Amino acid sequence: MSSSFGTLFRITTFGESHGGAVGVVVDGCPSRVPITAEEIQHDLDRRRPGQSRITTARAEEDRCEILSGVFEGLTLGTPIALLVHNKDARASDYEPFKDVYRPSHADYTYDAKFHIRNWRGGGRASARETIGRVAAGAIARKVLRLTLGAEIVSWVSRVQDIEAPPPEFDKLTESDVDANIVRCPDGPTAERMIERISEVKKQGDSVGGTVDCIIRDIPGGIGEPIFDKLEADLAKAMMSLPASKSFEVGSGLSGTYMRGSEHNDLFYMADEGYVGTRTNRSGGIQGGISNGEHIFLRVGFKPVATILRPQKTVNKKGEEVELMPRGRHDPCVLPRAVPLVEAMAALVLCDHLMRHGAVEFLSLSPPAPKR
Amino acid sequence: MSSSFGTLFRITTFGESHGGAVGVVVDGCPSRVPITAEEIQHDLDRRRPGQSRITTARAEEDRCEILSGVFEGLTLGTPIALLVHNKDARASDYEPFKDVYRPSHADYTYDAKFHIRNWRGGGRASARETIGRVAAGAIARKVLRLTLGAEIVSWVSRVQDIEAPPPEFDKLTESDVDANIVRCPDGPTAERMIERISEVKKQGDSVGGTVDCIIRDIPGGIGEPIFDKLEADLAKAMMSLPASKSFEVGSGLSGTYMRGSEHNDLFYMADEGYVGTRTNRSGGIQGGISNGEHIFLRVGFKPVATILRPQKTVNKKGEEVELMPRGRHDPCVLPRAVPLVEAMAALVLCDHLMRHGAVEFLSLSPPAPKR
Amino acid sequence: MSSSFGTLFRITTFGESHGGAVGVVVDGCPSRVPITAEEIQHDLDRRRPGQSRITTARAEEDRCEILSGVFEGLTLGTPIALLVHNKDARASDYEPFKDVYRPSHADYTYDAKFHIRNWRGGGRASARETIGRVAAGAIARKVLRLTLGAEIVSWVSRVQDIEAPPPEFDKLTESDVDANIVRCPDGPTAERMIERISEVKKQGDSVGGTVDCIIRDIPGGIGEPIFDKLEADLAKAMMSLPASKSFEVGSGLSGTYMRGSEHNDLFYMADEGYVGTRTNRSGGIQGGISNGEHIFLRVGFKPVATILRPQKTVNKKGEEVELMPRGRHDPCVLPRAVPLVEAMAALVLCDHLMRHGAVEFLSLSPPAPKR
Amino acid sequence: MSSSFGTLFRITTFGESHGGAVGVVVDGCPSRVPITAEEIQHDLDRRRPGQSRITTARAEEDRCEILSGVFEGLTLGTPIALLVHNKDARASDYEPFKDVYRPSHADYTYDAKFHIRNWRGGGRASARETIGRVAAGAIARKVLRLTLGAEIVSWVSRVQDIEAPPPEFDKLTESDVDANIVRCPDGPTAERMIERISEVKKQGDSVGGTVDCIIRDIPGGIGEPIFDKLEADLAKAMMSLPASKSFEVGSGLSGTYMRGSEHNDLFYMADEGYVGTRTNRSGGIQGGISNGEHIFLRVGFKPVATILRPQKTVNKKGEEVELMPRGRHDPCVLPRAVPLVEAMAALVLCDHLMRHGAVEFLSLSPPAPKR
Repeated sequence: MSSSFGTLFRITTFGESHGGAVGVVVDGCPSRVPITAEEIQHDLDRRRPGQSRITTARAEEDRCEILSGVFEGLTLGTPIALLVHNKDARASDYEPFKDVYRPSHADYTYDAKFHIRNWRGGGRASARETIGRVAAGAIARKVLRLTLGAEIVSWVSRVQDIEAPPPEFDKLTESDVDANIVRCPDGPTAERMIERISEVKKQGDSVGGTVDCIIRDIPGGIGEPIFDKLEADLAKAMMSLPASKSFEVGSGLSGTYMRGSEHNDLFYMADEGYVGTRTNRSGGIQGGISNGEHIFLRVGFKPVATILRPQKTVNKKGEEVELMPRGRHDPCVLPRAVPLVEAMAALVLCDHLMRHGAVEFLSLSPPAPKR
Repeated sequence: MSSSFGTLFRITTFGESHGGAVGVVVDGCPSRVPITAEEIQHDLDRRRPGQSRITTARAEEDRCEILSGVFEGLTLGTPIALLVHNKDARASDYEPFKDVYRPSHADYTYDAKFHIRNWRGGGRASARETIGRVAAGAIARKVLRLTLGAEIVSWVSRVQDIEAPPPEFDKLTESDVDANIVRCPDGPTAERMIERISEVKKQGDSVGGTVDCIIRDIPGGIGEPIFDKLEADLAKAMMSLPASKSFEVGSGLSGTYMRGSEHNDLFYMADEGYVGTRTNRSGGIQGGISNGEHIFLRVGFKPVATILRPQKTVNKKGEEVELMPRGRHDPCVLPRAVPLVEAMAALVLCDHLMRHGAVEFLSLSPPAPKR
Repeated sequence: MSSSFGTLFRITTFGESHGGAVGVVVDGCPSRVPITAEEIQHDLDRRRPGQSRITTARAEEDRCEILSGVFEGLTLGTPIALLVHNKDARASDYEPFKDVYRPSHADYTYDAKFHIRNWRGGGRASARETIGRVAAGAIARKVLRLTLGAEIVSWVSRVQDIEAPPPEFDKLTESDVDANIVRCPDGPTAERMIERISEVKKQGDSVGGTVDCIIRDIPGGIGEPIFDKLEADLAKAMMSLPASKSFEVGSGLSGTYMRGSEHNDLFYMADEGYVGTRTNRSGGIQGGISNGEHIFLRVGFKPVATILRPQKTVNKKGEEVELMPRGRHDPCVLPRAVPLVEAMAALVLCDHLMRHGAVEFLSLSPPAPKR
Repeated sequence: MSSSFGTLFRITTFGESHGGAVGVVVDGCPSRVPITAEEIQHDLDRRRPGQSRITTARAEEDRCEILSGVFEGLTLGTPIALLVHNKDARASDYEPFKDVYRPSHADYTYDAKFHIRNWRGGGRASARETIGRVAAGAIARKVLRLTLGAEIVSWVSRVQDIEAPPPEFDKLTESDVDANIVRCPDGPTAERMIERISEVKKQGDSVGGTVDCIIRDIPGGIGEPIFDKLEADLAKAMMSLPASKSFEVGSGLSGTYMRGSEHNDLFYMADEGYVGTRTNRSGGIQGGISNGEHIFLRVGFKPVATILRPQKTVNKKGEEVELMPRGRHDPCVLPRAVPLVEAMAALVLCDHLMRHGAVEFLSLSPPAPKR
């Protein structure tokens, strides 16, 4: 059951990169949520390869089909199955790697675990698996928007050593992020990032960096203590993404250099009558539970393992061989990771909103018995 | 169910810092594992406050009692309940904070969520909760040792900006780590760290830093693809610890600055006949599954929120007040976080070993039917 | 994790019949539920052996201790740990059975599974394990009462072939049931049952029968479709009780003899404005979800396996031996099963109420964001 | 997550009766299990409507498509997605019932819970949902066969009051069962059953009865104590089937009339050297764990709710109306329930085999670390 995620708003993804289809089943979505295939497609299109000259040239159309769970535009409260057929199946591209373990891919470990592997296009370990996450995330995001007015915005904050200044957390929108192909809302930094990626692409190499994410308008009290802390579930969500190497919440790593007297977020009473904090090094979460401030997190992604250079490796028979790559590759996964980070954040928050509701519901107005 | 962790080797912790007791129930532990209260106590003693002049002066004895699941020195395969009674209950220390929200603690968020809070000693959000984790972790570690010969060693790698050089991953032992009170295996760095912590303590302030962890002798094939990736579950485990702010696996954040051609771990055939990697930026995990190399991770901890300085905050009635702290505090949580990180790592690995076994078992020698 | 039950209101029991203690951890209970040790004790006292001349003579006091999760009389929303120390430890009674497999007990299967067994008093397979269920059930029942005004009443409906007429479902109370020691609300039938049990006891034999259960004032809409149907979860709950052999809901087995035209429950509009059914063969559940009518179920219990007669069996070494029982035994488990059935029903309903709340909450009044 | 079942071998079904498709995702299936669409289709064909004159006339072809998780005829260890497109969509048949609550169907309760309902063909509450169960069950059965040589055989044991004599448990095969259209292996009884069903069909009425199931060649030690007892999980599995009203294991209800001295299964040493029981009233399970004898269970099904007679009911607006049915109906669900019972039994046993393996694996030969 390692392909499932969430406790109440629970998704199960399926599918290898080649062959039948990839997809997701969302079980536990509340009923009467208005959702269309177009809304889901919008998020999928942001994830799709072939969007720009700095991503892979593979042209996957990735049309999403709703198989169940939606009726006359509204969710039924039953499982929502979403399917994307695999189209661009150039399996032959992968034929040479059939028995060769590509460095820093999952070829070797899948063989070690399963003693079998769909070698076409990375099989289950392909990034195509994330299609299901993004499709499900679109629904989770809709629930968060409709019930809380909450918004989730991610952007590329660093490519290698090229770092963007922090944007205005209160105002940043998806349009700001999508204003350029690298999805960094700071124009001048974006240009330098694009230049770097283009350069690296020419060299057949790849680069990594960080994606930041802000979650706005989550009220206080969402989350759980102890193991299912909001930051713990967000960490799991992000570290389950392909190529992620680090996770930070709030002040993150930089906070570990501070003293307590600098780091503590002092409470104050806002004019509007709510309890706020003067700073937000906690990243909107204290003791695993939201405090009403912006939730802020950062995910680090390694450089893509597929490079267009010869590499030494071994094959299934235990012979040392040289891998001569060919085909297409993504020199930098970051722009396409933006919708992945948003989707995973939406899935975690939506699940926790429902978990909170299970308890809070009892103190509101439970249904009255008949007699 | 947010106080439970693990799928097959599943623990549930309970208890507030004052009142009855804290403890844990371990459900799913294999039978016939030899375990004694002394072995568990050994790990608990490393977590205990009052171990040295740089940790809190609270003298908690934390004697562990086995209530069930062990018979004549062996586990029964039934739930193991472990209990530590709360002894040092100076609840009056906390009386002044009864209605005051301590900055960067969970007081406010617990009230926002539960509308009630055990204000004595942090209640459920107290670090005493981790007693159950450490006790359960001692059993998980025993299972890993007996079945795989695997070892888990953690140490303090950085206090604020004082960073230790990396130790020899192959050889580092618990004795090396426990050679000094700050649990940094590099002597000279340890001295500087202790000096810094002492200085900060005098000022009533606190500091953070990082704890590193190495897991040795996990064979390839342990872990799961997609959501329950080994690094994802380790991230959740570590980010569920009090005060943790960041998680890195393998090359971590530093890896995100590299190019793919630098970062990729090239496979080779070892003389002993196994498949190894020349470098280990993957941190022993590829695609969520172990590859047989050392598993390596790093956790960042913020400076402790409790400081002995006046701080502005608000109280339950919504009034802005000044918090005048008193009592005892821990200027640096890192030395005591070392056994916590080890315990959580052991819990994750033991659970995944069993999950792997569930599948692998079928291809070995399942029990023969009678007839 | 086979000692845990429930999705959101989740309990984990622990403990063998001899040695340390038995108990339960309740994780996920809503906060601010008023609960006292006395309320829990009330239910435990109904389960306790030695209540009357027709149950076992073992005098277990079973005093319940609350270790965590309750503060100033209210639940905290954190795990509630409940403990009952094992007192009456006449382990020597069981010494002769140490290596002998008692017929129709779990001795042999525990050895087959775990390769070790606490032979004192049945170990984990002892009915003492149900103490944790009853203690947790008392809290679940309190939640149901306070939020819905719901009531759960069970009674002994049949002992062997002595069957009681159905009571008035609308009015039956615990006092009616506890009016006699066999817990059958029909006086004349109760007398015959007691006579039968006394007779059987004299012969060193045992008898079984059925326990019925009615759940009142559950509104429509509680439960889930497909696998976690209310009747499916109730069936699992009841069939997990020691000695249960059958489960029926609504018309149960008798309904399978009818025609559809007889069996269907016709809907009508009640004067009070709600939708009711003329008959209730559905037992208050349709498609896994409550319809607002009384939920009705029946559990069959086999005769207790412990009898005071010599029986042929085998021992651990594979020798055929004769088992000469001694000590104390319960000739009929039914009167003590009544609180078990109620507890399990309460746990299922409370969990499903919370699961329903998680979804329904979103359409009520979710917490408003701050800004 | 109420559409998921199982802990390690975990399935998630999806789909309404009309619209896109129905299907299932099987997550956690071991790798390298040979499976073909034809094997799955074989089981689906036994479930399909329109097989004979005594089942519904709806001609659903129900062609199963494997979308993922199988590669070159072997399972990959990744999620297996199976899809059946909905073909025979005569939605207009259901138009008259759009706002009318059909007696003893789930129309009213779905509205009470979800406040929306796909009224076409019963929507999610349609028996078409069981397609996913049967497809997944075919894989589980294959795993059981290949690893244990275990076999599962179900049959119709009673239609209303027409009861078949018990078959020979050791020898009964699927062919024996499928020898006639009512799936009762006793020829003369089958004839009487068919006659009764035909008669009832003519009258537009329906009948219920019981399905028995035998599971052979499960070794001792499979199952879990306490809540996830084998009989508890089997009970949940069976009571989650549409129209099921009762569950019995081993001696079942008839056992509750016996005395302990009659009911106990005496152990003996078989000539082949294993521990057997002289009788098998335990139904192959003791204390939740298999003892190596045949596992035996019985499920009671009510008469189908859809009848071709006018019935009084209410509509969505709260008006009392008369329901004039039309279209096609299944006068007796039992013959088609046979593969459902088998599928659910296979899912439970396969999941428990893997759970057992997780523990047992550690005592066999866990993978050796590299160094």
